[in-house]
Amino acid sequence: MARRIVGLLTDYGVIDTYVGELKAALLSRNPELTIVDITHSVSPFNILEGAFLLYLSYRHFPVDTIFLVVVDPGVGTDRRGVALKTDRYWFVAPDNGVAYPAAYEDRIISTYMIDQSRLRTYGGETFHGRDIFAPVAAMISMGELDLLIEIDPNSLVKLQLPSPIINKNEIEATILHVDNFGNAVLNVSRKSFGHLIDRLVGETIDVSIGRRRYRARLVEAYGDEKRSRVVALWGGTGFLEVSVVEGSFAKRSGAKPGMRMKIRWH
Amino acid sequence: MARRIVGLLTDYGVIDTYVGELKAALLSRNPELTIVDITHSVSPFNILEGAFLLYLSYRHFPVDTIFLVVVDPGVGTDRRGVALKTDRYWFVAPDNGVAYPAAYEDRIISTYMIDQSRLRTYGGETFHGRDIFAPVAAMISMGELDLLIEIDPNSLVKLQLPSPIINKNEIEATILHVDNFGNAVLNVSRKSFGHLIDRLVGETIDVSIGRRRYRARLVEAYGDEKRSRVVALWGGTGFLEVSVVEGSFAKRSGAKPGMRMKIRWH
Amino acid sequence: MARRIVGLLTDYGVIDTYVGELKAALLSRNPELTIVDITHSVSPFNILEGAFLLYLSYRHFPVDTIFLVVVDPGVGTDRRGVALKTDRYWFVAPDNGVAYPAAYEDRIISTYMIDQSRLRTYGGETFHGRDIFAPVAAMISMGELDLLIEIDPNSLVKLQLPSPIINKNEIEATILHVDNFGNAVLNVSRKSFGHLIDRLVGETIDVSIGRRRYRARLVEAYGDEKRSRVVALWGGTGFLEVSVVEGSFAKRSGAKPGMRMKIRWH
Repeated sequence: MARRIVGLLTDYGVIDTYVGELKAALLSRNPELTIVDITHSVSPFNILEGAFLLYLSYRHFPVDTIFLVVVDPGVGTDRRGVALKTDRYWFVAPDNGVAYPAAYEDRIISTYMIDQSRLRTYGGETFHGRDIFAPVAAMISMGELDLLIEIDPNSLVKLQLPSPIINKNEIEATILHVDNFGNAVLNVSRKSFGHLIDRLVGETIDVSIGRRRYRARLVEAYGDEKRSRVVALWGGTGFLEVSVVEGSFAKRSGAKPGMRMKIRWH
Repeated sequence: MARRIVGLLTDYGVIDTYVGELKAALLSRNPELTIVDITHSVSPFNILEGAFLLYLSYRHFPVDTIFLVVVDPGVGTDRRGVALKTDRYWFVAPDNGVAYPAAYEDRIISTYMIDQSRLRTYGGETFHGRDIFAPVAAMISMGELDLLIEIDPNSLVKLQLPSPIINKNEIEATILHVDNFGNAVLNVSRKSFGHLIDRLVGETIDVSIGRRRYRARLVEAYGDEKRSRVVALWGGTGFLEVSVVEGSFAKRSGAKPGMRMKIRWH
Repeated sequence: MARRIVGLLTDYGVIDTYVGELKAALLSRNPELTIVDITHSVSPFNILEGAFLLYLSYRHFPVDTIFLVVVDPGVGTDRRGVALKTDRYWFVAPDNGVAYPAAYEDRIISTYMIDQSRLRTYGGETFHGRDIFAPVAAMISMGELDLLIEIDPNSLVKLQLPSPIINKNEIEATILHVDNFGNAVLNVSRKSFGHLIDRLVGETIDVSIGRRRYRARLVEAYGDEKRSRVVALWGGTGFLEVSVVEGSFAKRSGAKPGMRMKIRWH
């Protein structure tokens, strides 16, 4: 059998030993796993950001990947832990919506809550990633579903990524993420809005954040415009991105996740 | 045989290629290893911090894990490299105490020094992690102990984590670590001090750093107190932590590793 | 067969999900790969820095390692993707020189361009790392060279690391890298300049950046000089490094990659 893959997405950061302990817990149960870090740099406790980053990335993983997703401000309270079997994947996460947009898109087939009482925690009640979710993910990788109790999928906490507002010749979008290159990733997917945007390629549009306004050419690739110019394009994320060629749009504009951005054309 | 796990803990950071070269050296000797990063963000040359982070995390790894621990201000001098076989694990490290608290707790069974003269260094004498310790860890994973010379365990450099001072209704503690969430981890373990602290759960205690004083409820989980309140609780580390619910105690208080903190109750 | 190793070097950073998606793409084609992160912290779009870090590190990897190197300001333009088979390794990268110094040193045996038209991109044209280079690296690991078209090696973009200028009793060097410890790594290799430098070990030399001047002892290891003194030595990189013992030369001097540094002796 092919080695089973576990993809990790957390807000643990990479300074502490938490990610290492998570992997230790996984490998203690199933030493044959292949573990892939998606990111551990979700802003602490930011469920929406975690949900979006998972939504962007999960689709590129091989079938049967198990996603272990921990952004969990409610750790130790009575919020449930859940395991979602979808068309192609498994998602193990707290029931706060962080895995919902990805799992929903892939079509949820079975919904389980985790019987936490049968797992031992170490120290206090604050590290369910290591003590609850990792053991469950490892057990799923070995076909052991004993700790899972099937529940009504309608009882899940549902989280939806914000939708853009479409006006005539204008989109009011939200910045969902600012990446390492300073690109602002908007909540405008090619899948849903390609019919509006694709025909504008080559043209120049207006982009504004608060009172700052930029002229941006809509291009197919960074190399289609000169260095240091503002451009808009479909990123490898599948979402519309606003960028500076070989520069940082975030540095130039002060763009941050959560900010509104208006895109206007003629 | 199950794939052998090597856990890495260093002060190399993740900007440079050093960690990659360490892994290259391990895999050159044993391509079947599973390598787990514990952390590479120990403050440069900070042996005590490295020792504490290893002490927190080693216990969660599977039996037979080999820990490769490099915080090594004395690299290239005549400080020895050592390999410690303990009850469940191996530790490979410079003989400066960085692996001592963890290895001591797990019970040291055999103590070896590394015959460095039989390993080739590349460039100068500054990268023993890659050129000495990684090859030795890989050789141990394959049962080859030829480069190890048994020595008197009493000759090891012993490093002890600082102990808190216990007064009547008061503990004078030291902050051993500040984590990604801004939690201050104190040198007060549940194992040693649970009998003092556990009976205070639900009550409010005084917490002070220098002249700053906070009222903190002692809780079982973050969710037991309102957002932005200061709490104290047993962390997943097994040590007492002072936190702000969905916030950062370090940002609020200026807490840093090494600072003293007083905890008082009535 | 031993598990095949893929070494990754990019400017993607570790905040985003890009590295995770790269690994997902690799494992989708070949789930048996062992993936090693060399670094993802190359300064965005800095081809020279990427080339140097690859040049420093590639040599420590096992024979048959495939290097996947993506620093790619020209993504989506008509710059080619290339795959270089060398004496011991494979290099997969954009044809902008980033893999050239390493591949050239290891001796290029076969030179291929990638037929990108036969690979599907997701979203826009901006993530060739995931959509083009990773699939090709995975296919090479399985012996599938169908997407590779042999080309004239003379048509490759050649990039050369800058050479130092040697005067009488003086070297004008360039800082190629500043590492996690604040060491300044110069473009002065032991291989090429050992005959000039080795005989100075133990002596004190002059080191200057702009108007700042330091006296530095040339030592074999950090431990040969007192704490906080400036030293010069052959680093584990194989290049001359200027350091502060248990401190940071970069913090003291303001040294940054690309700066010129003069070394003078008597």
